[in-house]
Amino acid sequence: MEFMRQRIARDGRALDGNILLVDSFLNHQLDMDLMREIGLAFAERFQGAGITRVVTVESSGIAPAGMTALALGVPLVVFKKRASRITNGTVYQANVQSFTKNTQYEMTVSTKYLPRGERVLFIDDFLAMGEAALGAAKIIKEAGCELVGMGIVIEKAFQPGRKRLDDHGHEVYSLARIRAMSPDGIEFLHEIC
Amino acid sequence: MEFMRQRIARDGRALDGNILLVDSFLNHQLDMDLMREIGLAFAERFQGAGITRVVTVESSGIAPAGMTALALGVPLVVFKKRASRITNGTVYQANVQSFTKNTQYEMTVSTKYLPRGERVLFIDDFLAMGEAALGAAKIIKEAGCELVGMGIVIEKAFQPGRKRLDDHGHEVYSLARIRAMSPDGIEFLHEIC
Repeated sequence: MEFMRQRIARDGRALDGNILLVDSFLNHQLDMDLMREIGLAFAERFQGAGITRVVTVESSGIAPAGMTALALGVPLVVFKKRASRITNGTVYQANVQSFTKNTQYEMTVSTKYLPRGERVLFIDDFLAMGEAALGAAKIIKEAGCELVGMGIVIEKAFQPGRKRLDDHGHEVYSLARIRAMSPDGIEFLHEIC
Repeated sequence: MEFMRQRIARDGRALDGNILLVDSFLNHQLDMDLMREIGLAFAERFQGAGITRVVTVESSGIAPAGMTALALGVPLVVFKKRASRITNGTVYQANVQSFTKNTQYEMTVSTKYLPRGERVLFIDDFLAMGEAALGAAKIIKEAGCELVGMGIVIEKAFQPGRKRLDDHGHEVYSLARIRAMSPDGIEFLHEIC
């Protein structure tokens, strides 16, 4: 979407070829009007797909996912990051590697909030290696729900995440796809995505 | 506010005299229509107070604080929880004890997003011991900003947080104040708060 590319071009800053700072509007200081616009864009794309809940991962997915859930009129379920595996059967979990932060965590959700048969839209702020998205997909499948689509605010198209999700057959919709970046500038993919 | 007390009475569950489960609508599965109503209530209370930004702490404060910022038309700044102290001068930090989780963390915000002279509204989902609120107040003061008020979704009025904030002269507005609770029921304070 043009509004997202414009905002990244104006306020984003590539530290190098890998790290994009968007903390002035997306994940530390948040422009809530932009979040509303993001939510409306995802809702418009997946309107008519029978979505019954939106899911995301704490914490920077919450604002864009919340605005999407509001626009679609469905609940938001926030997957938590836990340090350790819980084995009492009340939660679904997936081990997720965060390459950006060089850590790993157990993506965790109560079984209560992902009942069988739900039609789920996953929303996240970034897609890079695709680890969080694949972890969420694993949990959604284990719960007996259908992952209808994935909405990504910023896709680093030069990293393997998008291809991994495509290979799994997931429907991915990114508001902005970055082809390459450096401190000198950010180059976008402009095809229909 | 009546809408908040009614929702807690209907969907909240007191495990004992201290722990209130609200994860079906407030902090794990989120009812975004309720979040919008919460945001409008805080915005109405602090309309006219010249608020220039809303701040909260990740991650369960993000949704109610985001809806408040949206309603007020100002940015949201999310204070991060970090494990360790950063001493390079680019952030403000406060050490916060979490009694619920028996952990502590460094509440952290980039100095960029709290410039001197801002008029700040702090929003959080719970007030119990008041540790997070006092940590935020310390940071806001250190930044040379004015803490205009604090909006709390659920106040555990039987714990010392409210009195500690009152003693510091902070303006606190809670949507629901719980006087006492047990698995048999939840009792609210109904005076103007």
